[in-house]
Amino acid sequence: MRLYIIKIGGNVIDNEQALQKFLSEYASLNAPKILIHGGGKVATDISAGLGIEAKMVEGRRITDAETLKIVTMVYGGLINKRVVASLQKHTCNAIGLTGADANIVKASKRPVKNGIDYGFVGDVESVQAPVLMNLLQAGLSPVIAPLSHDGQGNMLNINADTMASVTAVALSKLAEVHLVYCFELKGVLENFEDKNSVIADITPDKYQELKEKGIISKGMIPKLDNSFDAIASGVASVRICHADDLIALVNKEEKVGTTLRK
Amino acid sequence: MRLYIIKIGGNVIDNEQALQKFLSEYASLNAPKILIHGGGKVATDISAGLGIEAKMVEGRRITDAETLKIVTMVYGGLINKRVVASLQKHTCNAIGLTGADANIVKASKRPVKNGIDYGFVGDVESVQAPVLMNLLQAGLSPVIAPLSHDGQGNMLNINADTMASVTAVALSKLAEVHLVYCFELKGVLENFEDKNSVIADITPDKYQELKEKGIISKGMIPKLDNSFDAIASGVASVRICHADDLIALVNKEEKVGTTLRK
Repeated sequence: MRLYIIKIGGNVIDNEQALQKFLSEYASLNAPKILIHGGGKVATDISAGLGIEAKMVEGRRITDAETLKIVTMVYGGLINKRVVASLQKHTCNAIGLTGADANIVKASKRPVKNGIDYGFVGDVESVQAPVLMNLLQAGLSPVIAPLSHDGQGNMLNINADTMASVTAVALSKLAEVHLVYCFELKGVLENFEDKNSVIADITPDKYQELKEKGIISKGMIPKLDNSFDAIASGVASVRICHADDLIALVNKEEKVGTTLRK
Repeated sequence: MRLYIIKIGGNVIDNEQALQKFLSEYASLNAPKILIHGGGKVATDISAGLGIEAKMVEGRRITDAETLKIVTMVYGGLINKRVVASLQKHTCNAIGLTGADANIVKASKRPVKNGIDYGFVGDVESVQAPVLMNLLQAGLSPVIAPLSHDGQGNMLNINADTMASVTAVALSKLAEVHLVYCFELKGVLENFEDKNSVIADITPDKYQELKEKGIISKGMIPKLDNSFDAIASGVASVRICHADDLIALVNKEEKVGTTLRK
């Protein structure tokens, strides 16, 4: 079975018009599919509204107990259900999940490192691929929020890119998995000033070269590291493309965005 | 198949200790089960924190667009996932759902009546009992938040008692369904001042009599109306009991709470 795992980031989530366009196109993809969504700015806005200040340590956000509540509400509730209700409108039988639901993704709280406690942030321990496969075979399309649980009753915050790649790796034992990161650019760019300078293919060797030359920017590195790990672990392909290019990529099998290869 | 549908109300949700005790007992019930949870005060607290005032018309809360966001976050995210994570801790393989997920409960926006627009409040149109049955047969325990969708992309607020009864009725076509309303009292009381004056059994005739005598209080009437409708529509039994009495009722089959009969 050819299975698409598609990750959509915060930029699209934050733009209602772009989100609705994306979801109507996602619904029309003619393949079994799983959607992983990021968080967007809503959580920050609601935190601010409630007077909860974002805690930062060395430029990284700390998920304290109050922030965990907010992300559980916003990612697991508001965004996840908005996406599900929209997909249902487009007759895509979506089912919204977090890692805690049906225990699909279990994690452990990230250990304190160099004196930094990131709080309720999880490192993924296991993914129940057969449960997801059963849902897919029942004609359902899972929509997964970037949240997990520790098996001890606590929810944990998970990076959405990581959620996408661990899910893809686990399912690659049972299906031919194509992982697609949709974002606001046409792909990985040769020149950030030229939004059309998409690098069509990147191999691990070329990735090293691009990093050494400083062509691949800091923000892309975790996404690409995750992607090459996924490929090394059995995922058939990883693409990075614009959210607008999804139908071209999946239904028309056009060569769009950046393809990462072995 | 003997199936329990258990509704837990706001009073238990609001008390962390009572909730955890209830969930550990719920997890240990030795029967297939579905949990329907209410909202509790958290939504009101968060609305107040965000400066959103509860809109009331003739003593009834209006679900305007802002309130809908809050209940989607709190019921569908915070409470639902807290319950799921706790049940997972107790090795009950819970899966949290709203009516939008897998389209299990579809509703339509309540029409304006006598000039009152209740806003995003739903009247249930359909329940996909086979989907719930498939989840149960896969060893999963659905945990359902009192939210639905209209098939047009909008979430809708649903009364949790109603959610429990419509789900019970739909599943009664496929299983022997026992509906249990858990709350903070031992059952329907003969004398509200005496918390032990539980009325063991109520038939429709007795219900009329109790209403005429003013013994059944205003707040209980919608719950009991729902319950008798459910029984008339095929639900095997409806019990109203204290959250603490669940194990006695299900695992020990003791005679606790109030039983509603044909």
